[in-house]
Amino acid sequence: MSVITDLIEALGADAVLTGAAIGERYRSDASTTGRTLPLAVLRPASTQQVSLALQICDRYRQPVVPQGGRTGLAGGANADDGAIALSLERLTGIEEIDVAAGTMTVLAGTPLEVAQRAAEEMGLLLPIDLGARGSCQIGGNLSTNAGGIRVIRHGMTRDNVLGLEAVLADGTVLSSLNKMMKNNTGYDLRQLFIGAEGTLGIITRAVLRLRPLPAARLTALCAVETYGAVVALLKSAQRDLPGLSAFEAMWDSYFRFNTEALALSLFENPPPFAVIIEVDSSGSGEDRERFETFLGTALEDGTIQDALVAQSEKEARIFWSVREGHAMDQRLPGLVNLDISLPIGQLGDFADDCSAALLQHFPNAHVSFFGHVGDSNLHVAVWKDGIDAHDLHAIDTIAYGLVRQFKGSISAEHGIGTLKRDFLDHSRSEAEIAVMRRIKQALDPNGILNPGKVLPA
Amino acid sequence: MSVITDLIEALGADAVLTGAAIGERYRSDASTTGRTLPLAVLRPASTQQVSLALQICDRYRQPVVPQGGRTGLAGGANADDGAIALSLERLTGIEEIDVAAGTMTVLAGTPLEVAQRAAEEMGLLLPIDLGARGSCQIGGNLSTNAGGIRVIRHGMTRDNVLGLEAVLADGTVLSSLNKMMKNNTGYDLRQLFIGAEGTLGIITRAVLRLRPLPAARLTALCAVETYGAVVALLKSAQRDLPGLSAFEAMWDSYFRFNTEALALSLFENPPPFAVIIEVDSSGSGEDRERFETFLGTALEDGTIQDALVAQSEKEARIFWSVREGHAMDQRLPGLVNLDISLPIGQLGDFADDCSAALLQHFPNAHVSFFGHVGDSNLHVAVWKDGIDAHDLHAIDTIAYGLVRQFKGSISAEHGIGTLKRDFLDHSRSEAEIAVMRRIKQALDPNGILNPGKVLPA
Repeated sequence: MSVITDLIEALGADAVLTGAAIGERYRSDASTTGRTLPLAVLRPASTQQVSLALQICDRYRQPVVPQGGRTGLAGGANADDGAIALSLERLTGIEEIDVAAGTMTVLAGTPLEVAQRAAEEMGLLLPIDLGARGSCQIGGNLSTNAGGIRVIRHGMTRDNVLGLEAVLADGTVLSSLNKMMKNNTGYDLRQLFIGAEGTLGIITRAVLRLRPLPAARLTALCAVETYGAVVALLKSAQRDLPGLSAFEAMWDSYFRFNTEALALSLFENPPPFAVIIEVDSSGSGEDRERFETFLGTALEDGTIQDALVAQSEKEARIFWSVREGHAMDQRLPGLVNLDISLPIGQLGDFADDCSAALLQHFPNAHVSFFGHVGDSNLHVAVWKDGIDAHDLHAIDTIAYGLVRQFKGSISAEHGIGTLKRDFLDHSRSEAEIAVMRRIKQALDPNGILNPGKVLPA
Repeated sequence: MSVITDLIEALGADAVLTGAAIGERYRSDASTTGRTLPLAVLRPASTQQVSLALQICDRYRQPVVPQGGRTGLAGGANADDGAIALSLERLTGIEEIDVAAGTMTVLAGTPLEVAQRAAEEMGLLLPIDLGARGSCQIGGNLSTNAGGIRVIRHGMTRDNVLGLEAVLADGTVLSSLNKMMKNNTGYDLRQLFIGAEGTLGIITRAVLRLRPLPAARLTALCAVETYGAVVALLKSAQRDLPGLSAFEAMWDSYFRFNTEALALSLFENPPPFAVIIEVDSSGSGEDRERFETFLGTALEDGTIQDALVAQSEKEARIFWSVREGHAMDQRLPGLVNLDISLPIGQLGDFADDCSAALLQHFPNAHVSFFGHVGDSNLHVAVWKDGIDAHDLHAIDTIAYGLVRQFKGSISAEHGIGTLKRDFLDHSRSEAEIAVMRRIKQALDPNGILNPGKVLPA
């Protein structure tokens, strides 16, 4: 008997893909760094099947790599080196929306956008949101503690998970499908699996927190002179705009590149910083008045130099298209996008230092910055002609070296996977990494779950 | 050499109280269930001293019970059976307030109210708040994942902790003094110590998230006919009042008892449910108008039958004095206050069933309900004449038995300690409790940290 025959016997042949039946899509996450196809792809259709599969793999000491929508950017879902991939793609569906409790119970393989729409149909908002919403899955969102664009209002994915079901390496099903906001009954085991990138257990089901669906959103694009003024604007927006749901800054080179690429002329002169402010609104005229008063005050006191208020959803989408920067991705093939975080007050200095250090090493590179400043999250976009693996390593080394100096985080929202693994000690101490290993050992003593991810060898 | 002499040698005599030097206050938390004084009381003045103390205790397999302000209600801080108490009372002070980042770095022994005031002096809000603010300490707030009255707006204590320093049983100092909102670099070790009641490590320092300080608050007391209408009111308040910062319901017998005890006549007839709604406000007339419009609509559509809007802070305090119910505590000595949570839609049915079951067993008891309905949190106040340990056990058995049927939590915010330990399996599965033990074993293999708390023997 081999692990594969045991798996086929336990799960049925339709749940175990091998050989030519394994599609190319199972090779890699969106980092496109997966080297080989998995040994097999398991497609369990129930928590019980996930449990059976892991019991068998644990017995054979067979490495298992959980796969959601494979939209991650850190290599976390790649099943190299003879690993079996366990795809959640058949474990899909919304099981319940409890309007009074404000919760959704959902299976892990459900695409994020499907879950978002189901909430909207009940007049509720699932606040987890990110660009990959069409293909990423709830289980992957939780396993990577996804961030995205609504964190400033509703928190990270972690903050929106009330209950969780996960299967341990030995097949134990841990079911904590809690619907309550408050529950202090012993250790909060949910937290172990959220953001662990599938190394401690496989998430199969979750209870997510829903919020009221905003009737409308108000969006403005502001021109700001200094990073200090960006922070001042953030602080006053947090104080005076209780529905603040996005605060995104673009440094000048990022803003200029993307507006030019889209042939947009938004300000007379491209400002040093362009900031998108968005607030949830009831759709009333009073909300718009409050928003415009806020911007008027910021203009008067010199915090901002100019402001464009979107007069329609279409205009708001134009502002967001600059921020999303797809034009940059298209025009600069191989663009590197680093995802880091730093205390909010230090993002400006970091960007200056990081830009100088990268341009010193790569004088002809294009370096630009943008990010969820309200969440302390900065993205660094770096491009040079004919970039190779050696250059990539140099960029990481320069940028993460500075992150270490600034006591920041080498991963704000993308996770560690394999691609940031060797830099983990830039943000976490030796003692912390040792405790992570103790936890790993306690929950997965045979080390079968997503081996080689997150923790350095 | 004994453990005490080793501790005196390492920490100095002033940091080790023994014999007659141990004051009565070290006997028990606010549950007053501590049976004996600790063998010794350690009063380390630095993280390094906490580390030294734990190294020595671990070597001697000496049980250590961390003590903060001892305001807990579950027996978690009692140092019975020859345990040594480790008090954080000398590890006190605000180390930094970073206005741009919106963070406070604070030592664990700092009283909550001291930390709140320090934030206010910088124009910021530390949103953790509870009745014991004057004597409870930050470390204890974190170790019990304190709830309180602002959870609906700013989340539990867990949601307001960005960074943490904790000492493991073997003396390892884990320092993760992160100031960022987003940080996905490996396992989120903070979460292990928050709410673990000192059984996995001793918290010594924390980075807490601060929010803008509201300029004012608007408060109303509403009369509501049915529990269904209470939920409808909550949902519309969450949708239409973005600054909603409290939503507290009192069932009729609780409201009647406390208004009578305070000689207040707030409504012509005591309603089936009285609800306090509070929103953070900029102090502008528009905010008040929006609030009154909201209440007017709720009156018109029949969600509420009456509403009193506080015209001053003094009037708001009167509404809150009814909710806090100190009059009930005074008039009904030995009052039992259970702290549970259930999905929001089920609190009404639970209260009906729980009341009936308790009154069947204790026909002359006074049973009443109140709670943070917006957080799914219900308190059950039970009193009978000459209550004894046998009665207490019967009350627990009846109420927690119903909680189990409703798939609720036997502890919303108070924690487990010793007093709820034997009921833990009413809210957590055997598999969950087994994983908690694995975690405990991984971090504290000799079992010296707060033994006998949280996990059943």
